[in-house]
Amino acid sequence: AAYSAGSVGDRRMLFRQLFEKESSTYTYLLADVADPDKPAVLIDPVDRTVDRDLNLIKELGLKLVYAMNTHVHADHVTGTGLIKTKIPGVKSVISKASGAKADHIVEHGDKIYFGNLFLEVRATPGHTAGCVTYVTGDADNQPSPRMAFTGDALIIRACGRTDFQIFTLPKDTLLYPAHDYKGFTVSTVEEEIAYNARLSKDKETFKSIMESKLELVLSKDDGCSCACQFGLRYPGSTTKDLSCSH
Amino acid sequence: AAYSAGSVGDRRMLFRQLFEKESSTYTYLLADVADPDKPAVLIDPVDRTVDRDLNLIKELGLKLVYAMNTHVHADHVTGTGLIKTKIPGVKSVISKASGAKADHIVEHGDKIYFGNLFLEVRATPGHTAGCVTYVTGDADNQPSPRMAFTGDALIIRACGRTDFQIFTLPKDTLLYPAHDYKGFTVSTVEEEIAYNARLSKDKETFKSIMESKLELVLSKDDGCSCACQFGLRYPGSTTKDLSCSH
Ligand SMILES: [Fe+2]
Ligand SMILES: [Fe+2]
Repeated sequence: AAYSAGSVGDRRMLFRQLFEKESSTYTYLLADVADPDKPAVLIDPVDRTVDRDLNLIKELGLKLVYAMNTHVHADHVTGTGLIKTKIPGVKSVISKASGAKADHIVEHGDKIYFGNLFLEVRATPGHTAGCVTYVTGDADNQPSPRMAFTGDALIIRACGRTDFQIFTLPKDTLLYPAHDYKGFTVSTVEEEIAYNARLSKDKETFKSIMESKLELVLSKDDGCSCACQFGLRYPGSTTKDLSCSH
Repeated sequence: AAYSAGSVGDRRMLFRQLFEKESSTYTYLLADVADPDKPAVLIDPVDRTVDRDLNLIKELGLKLVYAMNTHVHADHVTGTGLIKTKIPGVKSVISKASGAKADHIVEHGDKIYFGNLFLEVRATPGHTAGCVTYVTGDADNQPSPRMAFTGDALIIRACGRTDFQIFTLPKDTLLYPAHDYKGFTVSTVEEEIAYNARLSKDKETFKSIMESKLELVLSKDDGCSCACQFGLRYPGSTTKDLSCSH
């Protein structure tokens, strides 16, 4: 069967972005459809939408191998536990620095293979100490442009880490966040360098901008908003997020 | 500047999918970034998100040429009028069969150019008599796989027109609806032929399935749900949608 490449140039990779409305969370499905087994990974599945995701995986004839988290989520329950009860053999994945349990513990620099495609693990601490970004491989048989699944290390146009782990990727790298509250689905390294408030201001100016911005975001929306990264709080929480080490 | 191709293989076309949460509407931004003017079109803009969309267009250095509607929307106010007041020179586009006014009236078979890229107009009546689907061109310098912006002629996995205008497109054609209530962002012709309820049942079986399905959708969500196509009603409406001729 001819599967679509979705958002990437490389026909080898099937790609789907899925949205969970209550927590404004994006879940990502990636699969190597050139491999006879069609091995697949899910990044940041949400418990409420596990049935939708697993049904899609079944319809597309994929074999789910990994259910991965970019970090420990405070605004919603990860779907990985539920997935493991429904498809025994699926391995959960999280970073060592998160301190959380999983079948497969990864560290900065590790590669996670599904078929001939792979994701690189990059440490992007801030929101939580264990936050990682998963980036598609840099090779001829990998998707082009590259794609980075940033978790909460980036909110499009709102906040993001300035360090080299994300923003020294090629300019055309597609950035896929774990959350969006304004209806954006994707950005690029080039755009975020130019227009992300955190990146285009000096540190102190930025901090005050972000604090007023975040108040707005937090008062309007539920969910995770890079709050911990700036010592702010999750909406409705009177104490700092327990999963945040800052 | 290096712009990303977004969801398509062809680097010539910049592509963005944008979401409006209240009416669960997708707006699509397409631009020919290989043309020095970077001419762009917006499909199904929503009035509430016009500022977000125009700001993005400005940030990306694009020149908006057309603000297009797939049909007359009953569940939200189109952004085209507001866009025209903010950027004089932008032309609104709608189908002749819609009976609505616009700067540029199109019919089945017409082509709409932005730079060297173009969209074909396909009549897909049902939800309203004037519904059209805009499909990217079939040529070497156009995006591959092809992309179809179906308006309300398709809701992923839920309902859709069976006629040849959409489902005889190549199997890997990416299908982008005007609405989604379950967090899907894209489908393909192949998937919808296999898994869309309307397509996999005979007409009478389908009709009863859809009626019960739609009751669920309509009781849970606000907004347009292919209702008119089946003689059903919009949520909260006691009469048939005025924009529906069925
Ligand atoms: Fe988070
Ligand atoms: Fe509609």
